[in-house]
Amino acid sequence: MEVVSAPAEMQRLAESARRQGARISLVPTMGFLHEGHLALMREARRRATMLVVSIFVNPTQFGPAEDLARYPRDLDGDLAKLRRIPADLVFAPDSSALYPPGAQTWVEVSELTRGLCGAHRPGHFRGVTTIVAKLFNLVRPHLAIFGEKDFQQLRAIQRMVRDLDFDIEVVPFPIVREADGLAMSSRNAYLSAAERRDAQALSRALFAARDRYAAGLRDPQALCAIAAEVIATHPGVQLEYLEAVDAETLDAAPGAGRPILLALAARVGATRLIDNVVLGDR
Amino acid sequence: MEVVSAPAEMQRLAESARRQGARISLVPTMGFLHEGHLALMREARRRATMLVVSIFVNPTQFGPAEDLARYPRDLDGDLAKLRRIPADLVFAPDSSALYPPGAQTWVEVSELTRGLCGAHRPGHFRGVTTIVAKLFNLVRPHLAIFGEKDFQQLRAIQRMVRDLDFDIEVVPFPIVREADGLAMSSRNAYLSAAERRDAQALSRALFAARDRYAAGLRDPQALCAIAAEVIATHPGVQLEYLEAVDAETLDAAPGAGRPILLALAARVGATRLIDNVVLGDR
Repeated sequence: MEVVSAPAEMQRLAESARRQGARISLVPTMGFLHEGHLALMREARRRATMLVVSIFVNPTQFGPAEDLARYPRDLDGDLAKLRRIPADLVFAPDSSALYPPGAQTWVEVSELTRGLCGAHRPGHFRGVTTIVAKLFNLVRPHLAIFGEKDFQQLRAIQRMVRDLDFDIEVVPFPIVREADGLAMSSRNAYLSAAERRDAQALSRALFAARDRYAAGLRDPQALCAIAAEVIATHPGVQLEYLEAVDAETLDAAPGAGRPILLALAARVGATRLIDNVVLGDR
Repeated sequence: MEVVSAPAEMQRLAESARRQGARISLVPTMGFLHEGHLALMREARRRATMLVVSIFVNPTQFGPAEDLARYPRDLDGDLAKLRRIPADLVFAPDSSALYPPGAQTWVEVSELTRGLCGAHRPGHFRGVTTIVAKLFNLVRPHLAIFGEKDFQQLRAIQRMVRDLDFDIEVVPFPIVREADGLAMSSRNAYLSAAERRDAQALSRALFAARDRYAAGLRDPQALCAIAAEVIATHPGVQLEYLEAVDAETLDAAPGAGRPILLALAARVGATRLIDNVVLGDR
C-alpha cells in the first residue's frame, strides 16, 4: 500500500495506472475511519482493480465557527485499517499543497445545495464540490463511492459530475449504522456517554416515520410530524432541521408517488449530527 | 477530419486516443474562424499528435443584453478552413447537449475576474470557465491554446487549471492583427466600413503607449493617459474601460518592475471590441 502526499505524484501514478489498463476507484474521506468508511472501501475494491483512498480534512467545507481545528485525526490508525482492506494507494495531501496562496477557483452546484444542510452551513457544499473536483482530477478514478449519510452531498456530486462531464461513475452506498441505529460518523467520537444515548433519538425518529410510510402514510408533513414527536421526547437533542423533500431533486415538495428523503440535522450537546431515510422505491 | 456533435462520443474518442498514446491539443472556439484562430491551430498541431477544435457558441457567457442571437455563425465555412489545417477532430455540440434541463453547476474564478471585462459583463467569466472545464473533461487534452486577445480569459483559465488540478498545459498565443493593427475577432464582421476605420484607434492607442513605455515611461496612469488621448481623437469610439494592471495578477496597481497589461474595451457603433498590449519582459 503506497502512501502519497504530493498532488503531482498522485496524478502521475493515476495517469500511469490508467495507461496500463487499471480501473481506479476512489473513496474520498476526511480520515478517522470507521466501519462505514470501510464498508464503502470493500465495495470500491470489488468494483475496480485499484482502490485509492484519500484522507484530507478539507478546510474549505468548514465554516468559521465550525469544528475544523478539533476534527478528529488519526492517520496512523487509519493507515493500519487501510492495510487490512487493503487499499492500493492512500492519498493524504497537506492543506497547503491543495490550496496554495492565490487559489480562488470554486465549483458550485447552485440549486441542490440551497436547502437542508446548505441553508445552515453557508459555503459548505461549495467547499465539498471544489475539493471533490480537485480529487477527481488528481486521482482520475473511473468510479467514486459516496455514502448516503451525506445525502445532499451525494446529490450535489452526482449533479456536478453530470454538469461538468466528468467521465466518472458515482456509486451511492447505504448508511452504515451502529447496533442501536446511530448512523456511523467520525463526529460520533465527540459524544459523551449520555449524549450517545440521546443521539439514538435521531434514527429512532426516522424509523418511526419509515414504519408509518410502510403502513401507507404518504403525506410529507405528517411523516415529518411523526419523526419530530420522537425527537421532542429527548430534550438533549436540538433539531436544526427535519424535512421531507423529493429524494431526487431535493425540492421541498416531493412529487406524488416519488421517493421522499426524510432528512434531519440536530445538535446533541455541542455535536452536530445528520441522518436520513429514503422512503419509497428508488 | 471527423466531426462529432455528441458529448459522449467525443469523450469516448478522446479516451481511446489517449490510451493509444495520442497527445491531444485543444483549441476551443466559438466558430466564424479567422486567421487568428487558424494561427493558434497551426501552433496546436505542431505541439501535439491530435488536434481537436471545438466550435460552440456558449450561451452561458453572454449576458441577457448581449449578442448571443446574432453572433456570426458559418459552420460549413469553418469546416472548410479546418480541413486545410487540418484538424483531426471537430467537436461541434448542440447547446441542449451541453446544458440539459437541470444543469446548475458553475466553475468560478473569483478575484481575477472582478475587474476589466468582468466588471462590465457580469457572469461572463463564470460562463467561460464553466464551459472550458466541461470541454476539458470531454476532450481530455494534454494541452489547450488560448489567444492573448482575451487576456483576462487566459489568466482565469490558467488559474482554474492550477486550482482544480487539471493535468493540462495552457499555452498562450500572441494576438494576431490585421494589416492596420486591428486585433482579429469574429465580431469585426459587425463593423461597417466607417466603423472599421474608427476601430483602428484601439490598437493605435495601445501602440502609442507601448512606444512611450519603450522610451522609458513607466507610470501606469501616464501610459493610460497616452492611450486615452489617441482614443479621444476618434469620436466614433466609446471607451468602456482603459486600464493598466499587473499582467500576472490583474491587480489594479502593477508592482514596480513587473510587466503591465494595458487593456481596453470600447464600443464602435454597436460593436464591443477589446484589445491589449503587455509592456515589459514576461
